[in-house]
This record gives sequence, structure tokens and C-alpha cells, in this order.
Amino acid sequence: RERPRHRGMAKNTSMRWRLPLMCLLWEVAMIVLFGVFVRFGPEADAHWEEEKHEMNLTSDMENDFYFRYPSFQDVHVMIFVGFGFLMTFLKRYGFGAVGFNFLLAAFGIQWALLMQGWFHSFKNGKILIGVENLINADFCVGSVCIAFGAILGKTSPIQLLVMTLFQVTLFAVNEYILLNLLHVKDAGGSMTIHTFGAYFGLTVTRILYRSNLEQSKDKQGSVYHSDLFAMIGTLYLWMYWPSFNSAISDHGDAQHRAAINTYCSLAACVLTTMAFSSMLQKKGKLDMVHIQNATLAGGVAVGTSAEMMLTPYGSLIVGFISGIVSTVGYVYLTPFLESRLHIQDTCGIHNLHAMPGLIGGIVGAITAAAATEDVYGKEGFIKAFDFTGTYQTRTPSIQGGFQAAGIVVSLLMAFGGGALVGAILKLPVWGDAAAENCFEDDIYWEVPEDEESDVYHMHNPDKPASP
Amino acid sequence: RERPRHRGMAKNTSMRWRLPLMCLLWEVAMIVLFGVFVRFGPEADAHWEEEKHEMNLTSDMENDFYFRYPSFQDVHVMIFVGFGFLMTFLKRYGFGAVGFNFLLAAFGIQWALLMQGWFHSFKNGKILIGVENLINADFCVGSVCIAFGAILGKTSPIQLLVMTLFQVTLFAVNEYILLNLLHVKDAGGSMTIHTFGAYFGLTVTRILYRSNLEQSKDKQGSVYHSDLFAMIGTLYLWMYWPSFNSAISDHGDAQHRAAINTYCSLAACVLTTMAFSSMLQKKGKLDMVHIQNATLAGGVAVGTSAEMMLTPYGSLIVGFISGIVSTVGYVYLTPFLESRLHIQDTCGIHNLHAMPGLIGGIVGAITAAAATEDVYGKEGFIKAFDFTGTYQTRTPSIQGGFQAAGIVVSLLMAFGGGALVGAILKLPVWGDAAAENCFEDDIYWEVPEDEESDVYHMHNPDKPASP
Amino acid sequence: RERPRHRGMAKNTSMRWRLPLMCLLWEVAMIVLFGVFVRFGPEADAHWEEEKHEMNLTSDMENDFYFRYPSFQDVHVMIFVGFGFLMTFLKRYGFGAVGFNFLLAAFGIQWALLMQGWFHSFKNGKILIGVENLINADFCVGSVCIAFGAILGKTSPIQLLVMTLFQVTLFAVNEYILLNLLHVKDAGGSMTIHTFGAYFGLTVTRILYRSNLEQSKDKQGSVYHSDLFAMIGTLYLWMYWPSFNSAISDHGDAQHRAAINTYCSLAACVLTTMAFSSMLQKKGKLDMVHIQNATLAGGVAVGTSAEMMLTPYGSLIVGFISGIVSTVGYVYLTPFLESRLHIQDTCGIHNLHAMPGLIGGIVGAITAAAATEDVYGKEGFIKAFDFTGTYQTRTPSIQGGFQAAGIVVSLLMAFGGGALVGAILKLPVWGDAAAENCFEDDIYWEVPEDEESDVYHMHNPDKPASP
Repeated sequence: RERPRHRGMAKNTSMRWRLPLMCLLWEVAMIVLFGVFVRFGPEADAHWEEEKHEMNLTSDMENDFYFRYPSFQDVHVMIFVGFGFLMTFLKRYGFGAVGFNFLLAAFGIQWALLMQGWFHSFKNGKILIGVENLINADFCVGSVCIAFGAILGKTSPIQLLVMTLFQVTLFAVNEYILLNLLHVKDAGGSMTIHTFGAYFGLTVTRILYRSNLEQSKDKQGSVYHSDLFAMIGTLYLWMYWPSFNSAISDHGDAQHRAAINTYCSLAACVLTTMAFSSMLQKKGKLDMVHIQNATLAGGVAVGTSAEMMLTPYGSLIVGFISGIVSTVGYVYLTPFLESRLHIQDTCGIHNLHAMPGLIGGIVGAITAAAATEDVYGKEGFIKAFDFTGTYQTRTPSIQGGFQAAGIVVSLLMAFGGGALVGAILKLPVWGDAAAENCFEDDIYWEVPEDEESDVYHMHNPDKPASP
Repeated sequence: RERPRHRGMAKNTSMRWRLPLMCLLWEVAMIVLFGVFVRFGPEADAHWEEEKHEMNLTSDMENDFYFRYPSFQDVHVMIFVGFGFLMTFLKRYGFGAVGFNFLLAAFGIQWALLMQGWFHSFKNGKILIGVENLINADFCVGSVCIAFGAILGKTSPIQLLVMTLFQVTLFAVNEYILLNLLHVKDAGGSMTIHTFGAYFGLTVTRILYRSNLEQSKDKQGSVYHSDLFAMIGTLYLWMYWPSFNSAISDHGDAQHRAAINTYCSLAACVLTTMAFSSMLQKKGKLDMVHIQNATLAGGVAVGTSAEMMLTPYGSLIVGFISGIVSTVGYVYLTPFLESRLHIQDTCGIHNLHAMPGLIGGIVGAITAAAATEDVYGKEGFIKAFDFTGTYQTRTPSIQGGFQAAGIVVSLLMAFGGGALVGAILKLPVWGDAAAENCFEDDIYWEVPEDEESDVYHMHNPDKPASP
Repeated sequence: RERPRHRGMAKNTSMRWRLPLMCLLWEVAMIVLFGVFVRFGPEADAHWEEEKHEMNLTSDMENDFYFRYPSFQDVHVMIFVGFGFLMTFLKRYGFGAVGFNFLLAAFGIQWALLMQGWFHSFKNGKILIGVENLINADFCVGSVCIAFGAILGKTSPIQLLVMTLFQVTLFAVNEYILLNLLHVKDAGGSMTIHTFGAYFGLTVTRILYRSNLEQSKDKQGSVYHSDLFAMIGTLYLWMYWPSFNSAISDHGDAQHRAAINTYCSLAACVLTTMAFSSMLQKKGKLDMVHIQNATLAGGVAVGTSAEMMLTPYGSLIVGFISGIVSTVGYVYLTPFLESRLHIQDTCGIHNLHAMPGLIGGIVGAITAAAATEDVYGKEGFIKAFDFTGTYQTRTPSIQGGFQAAGIVVSLLMAFGGGALVGAILKLPVWGDAAAENCFEDDIYWEVPEDEESDVYHMHNPDKPASP
């Protein structure tokens, strides 16, 4: 039973052959590439027993698995439940939010294992993977989930897969430039994940601008239950962010410190978000949009510096500021971006990821530049910034400069890559929906013809009721 | 305020004395049996300090707790939230899905600690338990949760408790035969948990066949929100499956490897599920039933081989195939099983657990048979398959044969046990509901008389509206 | 678009200046105090490399982070998702439940880091924090979340922040008296968290008694979906409770044992809860209120004794009893407390936390008094009760006495502190809602004007429908 209002659809949104073909071909490509390149790293290979002897390890506990697996699982939850449910706030786009996020992330992590593997884990013609690669693949896909937030409800799953392919590739290149060429520290990804992912997504949505999007305005809001579903996403992102920022830091104090800094920053961010959400509304009521999103800005904004000696009060200050910036952004900047710059940002990623990501990059640069041997200890100083080998002579202030350069590079990659990918996604072959059908699961999903959707129609008097 | 349509009920579904009596008597039995048999294992006992001296351990980190507790918690979430919420997809059976799963699992883990303890942790007349026992108890109950999926909505909680008692017992016997007598490897339980649990449940539901079940057909579907609740279950199962398959593997590389293989298999499975879900539907739309279930088949299908040197690309291939098999099963096989074989499989466990479980057993047998000292290393080879003591002379190909035998034994135990238990559950004393009241929480739960249920009635014009 | 029925509101519930001011000023105070006092502990500081040399540690694994971080994350989930969603059962108070819990917990953990830091981690004028401090801060805030359960729906967020400030302070004092002065063991907080938190909250709600609360009686119930949201909270609390009770126990066997005991107690508790829920209802149907709450009583009731040699069967007995006590409490005691003692306890914390907390304290005292060197081993005995230094000569029976004294002190602190704070909250300056607007998100939140709320109004014929 098709709903009448879809009859008049001009666009062909059927995915019947395009989506299956793309999924199957790409997955076959993954299998071939994995077959040629990917093998277990020494800590996951059955030769580990010999490895242990060679490395003089006395305990299986020294396997990196035990240092990072709990954090990996937390990050995994953030990518699939966190981002997935955060985007279920739309009243009739819950399937798309959770389901497309699931699809693009499942594809993206495979491609990321390859791309990041070639850059970072390539040895004798093979990519050797372990738990840290899994975390990095999740991180990389995180940047795609962020970009998805900007175009949520307006693109087909085919477009999302195309975007994922390109964005993961560009992410890996950008990450390589930052981490390897500029020797920048960015464990929590303020620059590589958030700044890059957000400005990439904003550029894409700018290019895909739809002038007639007010046709689906009635579906752009939330309903009571969808806001609660979204809070599941918010809370899992918020709670596990300390794991996110500490997941790939050095063993020991660095992981420990990154978790503490992130915990503090996020706590402060909740209070300023609540304060400004109430203050900026005439009746002083809180707005779920802010609580769902701006409370997370504190995690983004300590992404670079969390593993550094930012100190707990430093983290509170960063959280304090980023909660305010993000909330103010939702109230004033998002409408401005849409009306003046034609940037339609469904989830407001400019407020949650772009601006806090920039803050994070800047705070990281300052914290690095301010580092001293006194604060870090002689050994700790070298270890924290990896001032060894070629980088033996780097000073904190030079490091700060390179950190700042990392922000600029990430922005350029995001704008350039976003423009390219946006142009590709604009081709009329990807099955995106007409403006009147945006933000509506019905186009790409079998939606149960339930009482609730009938109720829904009841309140759209301009549309014929279901028979 | 009882709803009018229940007045005419022929069956007595009141649990007022039967359920409390069973719960209380059985729990008293558990207390007595635990009192006689169960004690803390050496790593959880306060004598651990002395144990450490004896075993020459220098760090508390060597306590198995730290190797396995994070995985245990992930598995725990899979059993209670994963399976519980996966089954909330029915529009009016959410309380039963989550609540009865909670009840049977809480009872089952106690009985499993005893049954598995007698077989595997019995020493000087006592069962000595530690974190690995908790994981195994959760695993055992997982097979009951799977079987519950086949009979969801059609059985009383009393029947579920009876089934749990028997199924846990049979699970422990089957597991003992496989692991101890056949010396089979099955860390992620493709055979012991999935194949056994699924075919057991399918046999039970076959015997409990109801010819008049179409009377509650209107309640067998989902509504928009219930599909989102079910996705919570899906995603937690999907995300934590690497922990499931690695939870009881050997310390070190085996746990590490099992997690990677499962991660890869699940990622591939999502893409082929999406592909076939779209391809097999006339309009190319995705079906939530597939996304909720078939995406998980990849985890099931590497359950046996995940800790072996399956390799990442091998995992992708397994995930690729199982996603297809599972989705095709939902579209073509489930209706066939119901109409021709009278197997009413509410959640489609045949597609999610039975077939992928068989695939998992077969892949495990092949991977074991193909093992070489070259691939595993001399020490790693012996450790991976535990070719020590009596099994010193086993070759990989013989091991492969025993693995295959394990599949057959699991199937026989499932069919035999399922037939027995099905016959017991057919006795007219367990308070199951009439066909017209299946898939309806109202029979066993105090359901709030809320607006939504009123709306619900509004759309069942053949039933009198609530006064 | 304001709903007409709010027009007549007598009370000024606008938070526009009060809430922002309080949030911002308090957060600035946190920053200043953190700046003066809080620094990284040795295991999170970059000097850790030197610390390792000094302490002769060979592996980063010895960092407390790896012993406790997974448990910390589980506890974190319990506080924010567990308590937050447990309270979403009300049909129109989901935003307040999750959102205010978020706000008070985010503020509370900062203040708790300071208060508990001054008492327990103060060294050379600085509070040195690590992962254990984060856990303890979460624990402390847990007691506020409990108290929030009693006053849920009846207080403004401003009142909640005021309560948090005072309750955290009193919690820290009470904890100091118990742990340091009385040298009491209470790793899972039966006394410090549950008994104190619950009786504190009950005293507050007694003082805030509203005689006219039946005006919002129609909003005090649940709807079908809100009961499912609440089950998310329940299950996360239930599953992670073993982490809660073991999170700050000694490394090694104590953490291991605490997890096992809690697992057992909770499993037993589910069965007796189900039994009594069915038994105490005329038609034998299960009541979601009991399943959501009383199933957790077993975790509360082994909070003190879980790390002791309670034994698995001892845990089953404790769980058995507390499930019964809690369920019976919901059926008989809650109505009595409201009608006779004027204690309006929205979530029934008396049944879930107060009585089980008392049981937990008593069981802890008995278990401690019954300890012998034979059961614990010579070293284990001293380690378990920390009978070193000043406490070298303590005997188990004396320890039992002090444990009992801990219960009394916690009760006195709760009654005294609750009375004080209740009196403060009664001041007419905090923007609490009129009785007719209790249990309604609309007062403090921007609520989407969705179809569901319209349906909701449809069934409140005494209120004008939305235009």
C-alpha cells in the first residue's frame, strides 16, 4: 500500500539495482584487497608465543589488546549507537538515521583499514592489523558520521556510500600529512576527525543546496519520543568520550590523563550549555536540540590536548567555553548559515564539531607550545611529544606552530575535498529524493503502516488520509 | 479495567500461583545447590595472596579477572539488552520480549553455573567459579534466548522457565561432549550456542504449532517506534560480538585475533544484507527485519573459527556469504517453513542463528583442517588447538573431522531435546495464551491504559473501543 | 504556541535568569577551585615515567588506569543512562528525567571531586586525582540521583542543583566518618550511597509535601513506550552493577569476588521480584514498576559485603530476600508512606534503595563479624579488612560493630541533612511548578508540538484541545 502523495514524485529514488550492485561490487573489492594486503599484526598472530620470547615479555597482559580493547569497544559504541541514535531526533527519519549510519560505517571501517594501513601499518608488502587499527578505522569513519549529520535526510544511501569512499580516502591522506609529515599530536582528533569531517560535510551540503527544502519543513522537527531516542545517542557519546580521546594515546599516564581531561571538560560543558539554552530562550525553557548536541562540544574541544598536561582546570575552562560557543551557534549561527550562505546543516554539525574542533586545534597548539620539561619531566616531555629521531630538536613553540599548521591543512583538505565530492554527489544518478520527500523514511525503507503514521497523517490535512 | 475482547478467553492464563511457586521453589533449589556445591575459584578467593606466592605471580594483573572482565560485561549486555531489545520489534509485545528474556536469563545463568560447573569446574566436591564461569553461563543462556526467539509471543513465562531448565541441562551435556569428548574448538559457540539453540527452538516451535495463529496476525508486525527499540538490540549485539567470540579464547593473541576476525566478518555482512534486502524487494526498499537480524549473521558464522588463523579476508568472505544466506532466508525460507513444515518462527532464528551457525561449524572444521605449523608457528599450533596430552598426536585433518562431528552431535541433541521439551510444553497446564491473544502483552502484564493503546484500538474497528 | 492550560499558573517557573546565573557562577567557582587545588595524580601525570622507576614497576599495565577504567565506564553508564532512563517511565517527563539527571550529575561530579579530594586525596595542598577519584565522584553523585527519584517531577532544576551542592557535601562528610573514622568497609556503598541517599531524598520529599498533588495524578503514570525506555535504564543498572560493587575494591581477588557476588545476588533477585509481582496482583499479572525497580534491590543489598567472602550462595540468599522486600514495599508500603506519613516518593526509592540499603549494611556487618582467618587466609584477612596500623588489633566482631555504627551514622546524616536541605528548597524562590503542572516537561522544556501530545490531549477532555 503506497501512500498517494508519492505518486507524483518526479525523481527516481528506487535503489533496487544501484544499491545492491554498489554494495556487492565494493565488498568484493574489499575481499580482494584484504586478500592481497591485510594480515594479522604480531600481537594477533598465532606466532605471538615466539614474539613474546623475542621481546622478552613475561605476560600475555603486555599484548596491546589489553591496553586498548575496552576503549575500542567504547569507541565502537559511539560510532554505531552514539552517532546513529543522535540522529534519530527527526520524527520520521529514525530508520535512515540508524540504518544508513550503520551501512556507511560498516563499509567505511573496511576501507579505512586499508587506507590507513597503507600509510601507517605497511610492512613487507602487507598491512599488519591489531586493535589499534580497529580504533583508527572507527575514528576515520567517525568523521564520515559527522559529515552525514549535515546532509541527514537529504541524500540517498548510494550517495552516502560514494561520500564514504572519498571521505575516508581524503581523511587518510590528511591524517598522514598531519601525523607523519607535520608530526602533529591529535590523539582525540580535534583536527583530523572533527574539523576535517565537519567542514567537509558543510562544504558538501553547501554544494547540494536545495532552495525548495521548506517543502519538507514539517518533517524537519522532532516528536517527543524521537527526542528521547536521540538522548540515547547523546549520552553514549558523552559517557564514552573519555575513551575516545584516550584510546590511542601512549600506554600509561597518557591514556589516564586523556580520560581525566575529557571527563572534566564534558562536565563543565553541560552546565554552560544548560545555562545558555535557557538564557537565549524568551521563556527560559531548555531546548532539547542544545542538550543533545552542545553538551558534547567539550569532548571535541579537548581532542588534541587531552593527552597533554592540560590540567583538570584547563579542561574545565575549555568545556566552559565550548558549551557556550556551541549553544550560541545553534541559536544564531545555524539560521544565518542557512539563509545567507545556503548551508543547510540538518544536525548543526557546525556547532557541535566544526567550531569546537577549531577550538580543539587551537587549544592543542597553545598547550603544546606552553609545554616545559618542568611540567612533563625530562622523559615525559620527550615521550609526550615524541621528540625523538628527526624531531629531537623540536621545541614546544615550534611544535605549537606545526599544530596550528595542522588546523589549516585540515581546513583546506575539507574545503577542497568537500567541493569535489559535493560535485560528484550532485550528478543526477544517485537516486536522491525530491525536496518534498526529504526527512522521510518512506522513500528508502519499508515503513510499517502503523497507527502512529496514521496519526501523523491526520495532522497533515493537505495530504489525503490513508484509505 | 479489563478489555472486553478478553472476556471470551477459553484458556486460563492466570499465573498468579503457578509462576510465583515455580520461581520461589526453583530459587530455593538454587540456594541449596549453591550452598552445597559452589565456592569461589582461587582467583576470586581471599586466599589469592597465597595463591600468588605459590604460582610466582608478581602482579594482581595476572588475575583472570583483568583478562576477561571487560569482555564479560559486553557479553552480559548482549544477553540482556541485545537479545531483550532485539525482540521488542513486535508492536505490543515489548514488555514480554524484554521482561521474559530477563526472567529466563536470570534463572538460566544460575542453573548454568551449576550444570557447567559440574562438568568443567568440579574439584574436590566443589564447583570453583570465576569470571570465565560467568561468561560461560551467559553463553549457555544465550542459546535459550535464541530458542525464545522462535516461540516469542506464543508461550507463557512458565513455559519459558521449563524450557530454560531443560535447555540449559542439554546445552551443558552437548557442550561437554563437544569440548571434552570430541576435543572440539568452539570459542564463539557456532555449534554449541547457535546451531544447538536454534534447532532446539525450531523443534520446540514445530511441536507447539498453532494452526489458527492468523487470528493474531495484526499483532505480529512492528510499529515505527518498536523497530527503533529493536535496533538498540541489534546494534549492541553487532558491536559487542567481537567480545562474544573472543571472551573465552586463550589469553593474548587468540583473544586479539578473535576480535579482529569478528569485526571484519560483521562489517562485510552489513553490506550484503543491505544489498539483498533492497534487491529482493520490488521497489528496492530496505526492510528493517533484515537490517535488524541478518546483519548479525556474520558474527554467528565466525563463532568457531574466529580464534583460528581465519585471516581478515577469510572473515570478510564468511560475512559476505552469511549476510546473503540470512537475508534470502528471511524472504523465501521463513514463509516456506511456516506454510509447508509448520514451523512458526517469530523472529526468524532459522535465518539468524541456524543457518549461519551451520556455516560457522563448517568454516571452523575447514579452518582447523587447513591449519599448518607454518601458519601458526610451532608453539602457536599446539596452543591454538590444545594438541597436548591425549591429543598430542591429532593432526589438523583429524581435528577437522571431529569439528564436523561436533555439528552433527549438536544437531541431534537439538532435535531430540527440542522434541522432548516441546512435548512437555504442550501439556495444558502451563498457562499459554489462546491464538487470538498471542503477541499481546496484555495477557501477562499490567499494561498502562495509555493513549497509544487507545489509538491502537481505534484501528481495530472489529473490536469494541475502550469505554 | 503555549498551551492554554498553563495560562492560569500562579507560580513563576521561568528559569531564564535564575538557572543560567546559577550554572555559570557555580561553574566559574569550580574552575577557580580546580585551579587552586586539583592536579593529576602520579599515575596520570607526565612524570609517571620517573614514578615507574622509583616504584620499580616494569610495565605500564601496573597503572591503576588498567585495573579500574573498564569498571569506571560501566559506573559512568549507570549514573547517566541507568538512573536517567530508569526515571523516564513517566508519560510526559522523559526530558526532565534524562535531562535534569544529566545536569545534576555533571555538576555533582565536579563538586564531588573537590569534596572527596579534600578528605581523601589531599597532599601538599593539592588534590591529586586519578581514575579512582572519577569513580568515587560518580558514586557520590549516584546518591543524588537516588534522592532525585523521590522528588522526580515536583522540583525545578534550580532546586536540584541546590540539593546536589548540599547533598554532595554531606555525602563526603558522611563517607569520611564511615571510611576514615569508623574504618568501615563499604565498597559498593550500601550505606554511604544507598541508605544515605535514599533517606536523604525521602526526608526532602517529606518536607516538600504537596497536599494537592492529585491534581497531576493523570500524569503520574506511564505509557507503553515510556515503560520500555525505563527498561533501558533498569537493564544497564542491572548488568553493570557487578562493576559498581567491584569498582574500588582492592586489586585482584577482591574485585573478582565482588563482581561474582553481585552477579549472583541480582540473578536471584529477579526471580523473587517476578514471583511476588505476580502473586500480589489479583489477576497474577506482572507489574512493570516492580520489574523496573525491585530487580535491582539485590545489587544494593550486597553493596557492603560483595567484596567480602559472602560466598555465592550467601549472595543468592541476600538477593532472594531483597527482591521480596522491595516488591512488597511497592505494593503495600509506598501507598502507606504517602497517605499516612506524607512521603510522596515518585520512583519508590524507599523500596529500591532505602530498605535494600539497610539490608546491605546489616549483611555487611554480619559478614564482617563472621570473618575468620581460616576463611580468608592469614594475609587475605588482613588485606580484606585493612587491619593494619591503628586497626591492627581489631577483631571481626568489633569490625561488625563499627559496620553497624556506620548504618546509624548514615541514617542520622540523611535525616538531619535532608531536613536542612528540604527546608532550604521550600523557600519560594526556586521556581518549582504548581501541583497541577508537576510531572510535565512542558514547564521547563521546549516540547515539540507533536501528534502524540495532541493525542494525549484528546484523552484529557477536561482540557481545551490545542488549536
